[in-house]
This record gives sequence, C-alpha cells and structure tokens, in this order.
Amino acid sequence: MNGLMMQQPLLISSLIVHAERHHGDQEIVSRRVEGDIHRTTYRELAARSRRMANALAALGVKGGDRCATLAWNGYRHMELYYAVSGSGAVLHTLNPRLHPDQVVYIADHAEDQVLFFDLSFLPLIEAIASRTKTVRHFVAMTDRAHMPASSKVPGLLCYEELLEAQNDRFAWPSFDENTASSLCYTSGTTGNPKGVLYSHRSTLLHTFAIAMPDALNCSARDTVLPVVPMFHVNAWGLPYAACMVGAKMVFPGPGLDGKSLYELFESEGVTMSAGVPTVWQGLLAHVEANGLKFSTMRRTVIGGSACPPAMMHTFQERYDVQVIHAWGMTEMSPVGTAGTLKSKHLAMTAEQRFAVQSMQGRAVFGVDMKIVGADGAELPWDGKTSGELLVKGPWILDQYFRGEGGDPKRDGWFPTGDVATIDADGYMHITDRSKDVIKSGGEWIGSIDLENIAMAHPAVAMAACIAVAHPKWDERPLLVVVKKPGAEVTKDELLKFYEGRIAKWWTPDDVVFVDAIPLGATGKMQKNKLRESLKDYKLPTA
Amino acid sequence: MNGLMMQQPLLISSLIVHAERHHGDQEIVSRRVEGDIHRTTYRELAARSRRMANALAALGVKGGDRCATLAWNGYRHMELYYAVSGSGAVLHTLNPRLHPDQVVYIADHAEDQVLFFDLSFLPLIEAIASRTKTVRHFVAMTDRAHMPASSKVPGLLCYEELLEAQNDRFAWPSFDENTASSLCYTSGTTGNPKGVLYSHRSTLLHTFAIAMPDALNCSARDTVLPVVPMFHVNAWGLPYAACMVGAKMVFPGPGLDGKSLYELFESEGVTMSAGVPTVWQGLLAHVEANGLKFSTMRRTVIGGSACPPAMMHTFQERYDVQVIHAWGMTEMSPVGTAGTLKSKHLAMTAEQRFAVQSMQGRAVFGVDMKIVGADGAELPWDGKTSGELLVKGPWILDQYFRGEGGDPKRDGWFPTGDVATIDADGYMHITDRSKDVIKSGGEWIGSIDLENIAMAHPAVAMAACIAVAHPKWDERPLLVVVKKPGAEVTKDELLKFYEGRIAKWWTPDDVVFVDAIPLGATGKMQKNKLRESLKDYKLPTA
Repeated sequence: MNGLMMQQPLLISSLIVHAERHHGDQEIVSRRVEGDIHRTTYRELAARSRRMANALAALGVKGGDRCATLAWNGYRHMELYYAVSGSGAVLHTLNPRLHPDQVVYIADHAEDQVLFFDLSFLPLIEAIASRTKTVRHFVAMTDRAHMPASSKVPGLLCYEELLEAQNDRFAWPSFDENTASSLCYTSGTTGNPKGVLYSHRSTLLHTFAIAMPDALNCSARDTVLPVVPMFHVNAWGLPYAACMVGAKMVFPGPGLDGKSLYELFESEGVTMSAGVPTVWQGLLAHVEANGLKFSTMRRTVIGGSACPPAMMHTFQERYDVQVIHAWGMTEMSPVGTAGTLKSKHLAMTAEQRFAVQSMQGRAVFGVDMKIVGADGAELPWDGKTSGELLVKGPWILDQYFRGEGGDPKRDGWFPTGDVATIDADGYMHITDRSKDVIKSGGEWIGSIDLENIAMAHPAVAMAACIAVAHPKWDERPLLVVVKKPGAEVTKDELLKFYEGRIAKWWTPDDVVFVDAIPLGATGKMQKNKLRESLKDYKLPTA
Repeated sequence: MNGLMMQQPLLISSLIVHAERHHGDQEIVSRRVEGDIHRTTYRELAARSRRMANALAALGVKGGDRCATLAWNGYRHMELYYAVSGSGAVLHTLNPRLHPDQVVYIADHAEDQVLFFDLSFLPLIEAIASRTKTVRHFVAMTDRAHMPASSKVPGLLCYEELLEAQNDRFAWPSFDENTASSLCYTSGTTGNPKGVLYSHRSTLLHTFAIAMPDALNCSARDTVLPVVPMFHVNAWGLPYAACMVGAKMVFPGPGLDGKSLYELFESEGVTMSAGVPTVWQGLLAHVEANGLKFSTMRRTVIGGSACPPAMMHTFQERYDVQVIHAWGMTEMSPVGTAGTLKSKHLAMTAEQRFAVQSMQGRAVFGVDMKIVGADGAELPWDGKTSGELLVKGPWILDQYFRGEGGDPKRDGWFPTGDVATIDADGYMHITDRSKDVIKSGGEWIGSIDLENIAMAHPAVAMAACIAVAHPKWDERPLLVVVKKPGAEVTKDELLKFYEGRIAKWWTPDDVVFVDAIPLGATGKMQKNKLRESLKDYKLPTA
C-alpha cells in the first residue's frame, strides 16, 4: 500500500524557482574575467537561466545532450548549472587545469555538443577546437565588446548575444528525477579519467544533506564564497545549496591568490567559504604578512585533501574562523563526512575538541560507511583499527559513465581507495590513500600523519611522505620537503621534530629537499610521480 | 538518460540505523506514566525497535497493516515509530483527546489490527475495546509489574513481555519508498475525521526540510523536548529529525503542566522545544509566577495556531528564547513555513525584526505556496493582498485515505482553508481560516489579528473573534473573552484598547465575557461552536 502524498520529482530546476520566488533580491556577486565586479540577484539569474534554456533549444540541444563548461566560478557558470540541467540536458564541467590532450579525451568521451568557456581559456580552446569530435558550438562566456577580435575557433558564439536573442519565458520541464543532470570526470591519476554521472535526485538529496546544521550549515543569513571551483565536483554542491537556502553568493572568478580572495571576503561580508588546503595556505600567508583579520568570516570548509592541523589551529585560534573538516570524492557528489561536534564535546577542553575536529568527521545522513580488512570483513569502530573505507548512499556512484572500468562496487559498497579509522562516535580519520600507504615489515604506516607533522615545522612549506624500497622492511618512509622561502632546516632537525609526536618506528628514514612537489589538476600532491622519480633512491638505512 | 548513482530508497528505518551507528550513546529521556524518569540511548532504542518488529511479526502484522497507538510522548512510542513503519506496516497515531465515539470511528475506518496504549488511557480502551471491529490485540505499553490487576479488555497484552519474548536480530526490509508509513486523522471540525497517509519518501524529505538551519535547525548539539504530542502529526516530525541528526530527546509523557515541563527543561538541559500556544501559556505562567528563567533553552517552535505577538515578545525579550513561528497542517506532514530571518533583517531594529517574526514565515524548501482570489487567479506577494492559501510539494496530501471527500486538490494544488498575505520576501501571514473570516460590507476582516490584540491586554486570558449577523453589513465582529483569574476589564476598556492598533472599521462591535472557550482535540479554539451558541446574538449596532 502506497502513501497518498503528492508525487513530485526532485528536480534541479526547483532550486532556482525557489530562490527566485523566495529570495529574488538576494545578491550574487562575481569577480569577472573581464576584470570588474559584477552584481546580480537570484531574480535576474533565474530569468537569464530561462533565456539560456531557450538558447540551448535554439542550438539544438536535446534532453540528455552534454553541454560542457571550461569556466571559473561566476554567475554565468551558475546560470548554466540551471539552464543546462534544468532543461534536461547534462552539464559537463571540464577541468581547465588538465592537459589539453586530456581535455580532448574527456570532451570526446562525453560527446559534448556545446562548449562554454571563460575568455581566460581561449588559448586552450584554440588548441583543442579542431581536435574535438562532437562539439558543434563553442561559446565565449562574455559580451560582444569583450569577444576576441580574431579567433582561430570557427563560428565562435557570444554568450550574451545568445541570451539577448531569447526571451525569459521558459517552463522548466518535469521528468523522472533519476534523469542525468551533470557529469564530472575524476582526475584519473591512474589510467584515463572516468566520468561520474549525477542525477537530479542524487543532486537534490546531496543538497539537503550538505546544508544541514551538522554539515555545512547553510542559511539565508550566509554569504558564501566557494573557492573550490565549480569544475571541481560542482564546487562541492554550494551553487545548489545557495539556491535552496537563499544565501548570498560571492564568486571569485580567476582571482584565487590570497590578496584577491581576502579583499572579496571583506568587501562582500563573506561568512562562509570552502576550499582545498593549498588555497588556504595562500590566503593565510597574505593575512599573516599584512597583519590582517577576518571581519565577517565565521567558518570555512576544508576538504579535497586532509587539512593540516597547524592550518586548522591558525584559522580557529588566531582568526576565530571555525574549520569544518570535510571529506568526500567526485564519486560521492562529493560530501561524505563533515567534522562538526556533538553535544558531548561542548564540555571538553579546546585541545580535546581540536582532536575531534582533526579527524575528517562523521557521515552526513544518507551516507553509510564501513572499514574492512584485507579479507573484506568489517572492522571495529574503535578509533585505532584502520582499514579500507567503503561507502554507499543515494548520491554515491553506482557505475562510471559508459561502464568504464566495470562495476566498481563490492557487495553494493563503493571502495573509496582511502584507508581510515572510525571511532565509537562515528568520526572517521583518513590515515592514507590505499596506494600511498607505506608497508613496513607487514605493518601499515599512514603517510598523511607524517606529512602533517612535517607541515607543522615552521620552515616547511609542503611535505610528502612516500614509500621507498627497503631490503629488510620491504618499504620505509621517505620525507620529501619544500622549504619556505628563505627558511633553513636540516634533515636531522626535521627527523628530530618527530620525536614524541609519533611511534618511533614510523619516523621517516630520510629527508629529501626539493624545489617543488608536483600537484594534480585538483591541487592534490601527485605522490605517484614522486615515487616514480625517487624509485631508485637509496635510504641510508638500507 | 539516467544518472549512474546508487538506487537506494528513502526509508524510515534508515533513520534509526543511522542514529544507532553514529549516535549510539546519545540519550533519550522520558517521564513515564509509571511516574519515574526513564533513560535510554539510541543504541538501546534501536535494539528494542528491532525486538518489537519481531513481536509485530509474531502477532501476525503484515506489510501495510495499520497498528494504532494511544500514547503520550515517550521512548516506547518512539520505538513503535520505527518498529511499525520500519517493518513495512503503518503507524496510526490516534488522538486520545477525541471523543470515544470518534476514536472508534477512526480505528474502524483505519482497520487497525493492533492498538498500543499508555496506561493513562486504560479507561478509554475499556470503553471502546468491545466496539472496535478490526483490532485483534490490545497492548498496554508497560511492564508486567504495572499491568492492571484486572481489566475488562480480553487478552490484554503487555508491551515489555512482547519484547522479552523476542531477540533484537531483525533486518529492516527494503521496499519502495512510496510505501505508506504512517496515518494521522485530521480533527474533523466539520464532518468525519479524514485520514492522511504519509509515505517513507514524504517522511524522509520532510525530515530533511525541517532539520535545515532556516527551519527548526536541529543538530547533534541539541536537546529536543517535543511538547507537541506524537499523536499530533508525528510531533511535527521531531522523532524523525532527532534520529537524523543525533539530538538528545526528552519526552514529557503526560506531564504537560508548566511546572512539570519547566523542571524537565532545566534538569535535562533542553535547548529546543516545540508546541502550540496554549501549552506555552501554562509554562510561561509558571515561570513568571515563580520568578524563574530558562538556563539552557535557546529556541522554541510555536505552531498549530498563530503565536500571539505578546507571547513571542515575552519569550524573546524577557527569557532570551528565540521563537520560531511555524505553520503547517496534518495534510502537510505538517511543516510548510518557518519564521526565520534573512541576512537583510539582521541590520534592522528589534521592532522591525519582530514584525517579520510575527508572520508565519517563509516556505521551507520543497513547499510551493500561492494565494488566490475568488476567481482562482494568483494574487501578488505584496504583504497586503490576502487570499486563499494553496500549497504543493512532495510531503503534501494528494488524496485522503480511502478517497474520503474526493479529490481535495485544485489544479494540482492543495487548498489549505487558510486566508493569508505573502510579502515580497516570501513571508506568509495567516489572517484567518477561510471559514472564520468576517465578511463585513463585502470586505474581509481577519479574526486572528483582532484576537491577538485582545490577548495583549493584561486582563485577557483567551479571546476569540467571530462573525455575527448584521442587518446592514451582513456580518460584524464579536469579541468573546475569557478573563484572567481575578482580573477585571470592561467591554468599553477592551474596545478602546483597539484604538490606534487597527483600522477603525475592524474594531469589534461588542464584547461577550465567558468562563471558557471550547477547545478541540488539538488545542485549537472551536469557533464554529461559539458561532453556533451565539448565532442569535443581537449586536448593539444592529
């Protein structure tokens, strides 16, 4: 027997309809690639999204067709989020930091029909336009006045002209909530990038989950600046959550350096932000160097890779900005856990609370997780036993686009590739990526903890810890360090720094100083490249 | 083309599974009808729910069967929320404040198979047991020691004995999320009560929506005491939201007087509560009479009927308890709007913010609303034009149980029977029930505003404003007043109290003092009864 409630599909268009109707005058502020600050409202953005939906139809885009973007965070990009998905097509957010060959591979694999791009990426577009197989239209996301005088891209279209040719009367269609809405490719550190195809249902449920008080806690009183790019798993869902709750949005465009971000935080009264640790390093360096403080920012979400405890400490203790340590994956839409506190923690000391926050947090409602041993059996939630982390839930990948790589699941669970502990309160702590874990004498050493300790040293700008072959122990940890400009530190000083901070046998066997550690397109350290370049490194203990 | 995310139905059982796994040691505290304070945890409650699911199977309860409760707010009632719905049966929460004839009518209409009841209701059960047609088992929600020595109910079962006979191994079944989960009858002020049949999907989506920061803002740091009964639209969804977020729950049992509630608020550190205005009158009277304050309570949700501005003022200004003015209906699961602020309001004066909060609030995401005129055309959101309020959304009624009353919808919208204005920011203000509105000379006078003004007078305990026939104006307002014990006020003083507070022609034509105003089973004033008893009243202006 079924319930007798209205049947209404969960659709992305309902988010922009709600925002227009209930938060019509709420602002959306963007730093544009054209150089200026642009201001609009949800009312305007909704009307322009409908114009763009008409424009897409005029370009021959049909339901299920993929429309790609190569764009920074900005209002036009947000319009496309709603115009494309809302009209039943699939928004494919390409990562402009990928190598052009990879962009071509991905666009071909996705069979993108239209490609929208910010002017910053014109050189990339010119390099790939003739190589992509399916793209019928390239659209520069600007107005006529800023269109390139001459371009190697044949029939290049102008975003604002497309809009001007249409009116804003467009009825968002209704369809099955399981319809595909958007597509995001993993960075593919091994093998080709694989596509993750989200649905309207998965997106709406994820939006509810991340806006909750114990997750990102988004409300109509927030001003949200997503530093995390809209091409990086939909900016962790914030462009959807902002519409759901009617938050003011501030988009940084291409200005991701510390100075540009700080100015925008202050001038627009940003209360909440979100990004990866490497971005915050730049921001904090600027704030510290200039003796500044945050007037309005109250919290920031840090994810993508583990937040170094030293960074969390600086944000919270020095600047009174609460850090929400979060964890997720492209395959998880992306949010899986958020490190917010329970009532039992409120009576604890700051140090004890900090220890809780240093973990990646507890599962948001909707995500189930478990850790398993090599035999696949579930391991206890004791905060000590580490195992491979598996997840399931309605916004977690079932299959990659076009079945690439076969069924990734094990007994219905998605293996994350992370190694973690979970404590009795459900707080999960990532100790490593399973491919980065260091296997020393049959025991596992987590590289992330070793890196975090090194990062806490005042002379260290960046640190990676990798496994190097060892004749007796199979593998031993090698610390790879980038020093801060002008700072000096010796190998022995660094190794001594581990004393008392970690089990003695976890201490790295050696230190290598380098000028830079290679970063991937999403800002993560490419430890596989380090392992490759240092694979013949001879440890002094060998 | 569909997305490629995991397909996982939204099921009520997932809430208790999540609470057990992530908040196993979080407390659930109940004042029992047995007289004591009982403490348990989500871990225990989950295990006992599984035992009860086994017990239901042993009693022959199958998927879709209705299991009724006649019970206060308490942990056993919460166990039944999960045991019954989680196992695929339908939880039917009967309202013990109804007349026994109505209870019999509703139990028969619902075809209840099992009826669980708190000992307080043994006399009611004894009065109806032989009259109900379908109930096979009556279960007293207590242990053997507290079972009635002799009872007129044949084969009376004992709740704790049912549990003890089972083990806690039970795998919650998976099924279509549209499956019926629970059933609640409207109070039926006109005609027979009608059943509203919720689904697992509607319940889960409603739970997400009410837990959001801009709705009831529930988190793992909250201690929630629902004064609103679990037989009154599932205590507005709080027993579900508490599991979703891992909040501590405090159940008041039968102790709803001001003193009992206050003691529980203080002893258990309650941070958040929810109930109808009449309950808060009793609580505030106790607190004021004894010069007390609230140590931990930070906010309370007030709904069911409009919160008198004077009450809101007292809570916020005198006791620093934020009032969340909310509105909904049994047909809406029940929450439709919540009166939380936007960023634009933060810079306003306290008085201006108070004016915003006095309205019923803005739609929670998922609920669409509009106001229409007599011709059905949509009216503007200008904060002045009032019209009939219509709603739609995935937790709003499509049909009543068994099709009673035919299709209640108009063009897919549910007519609420309320008359309201909506302002440009989406804040809705109920001016009246459409059946209570006073039609004076072709214009509408909202009775609620008139009542709120009278309620602000220090001598007035309760006030109702009803339409009385008038030879010239068709109808004119008559104020019906219950004075506070020992207080004195004259008709002229009350009418003078309206001066400057409202348009002159809205002022009531006369005042009638009564000892009591009849209240319905959900605590609302039964103005239809007042109209009936005063239908021949002759106004001095007639």
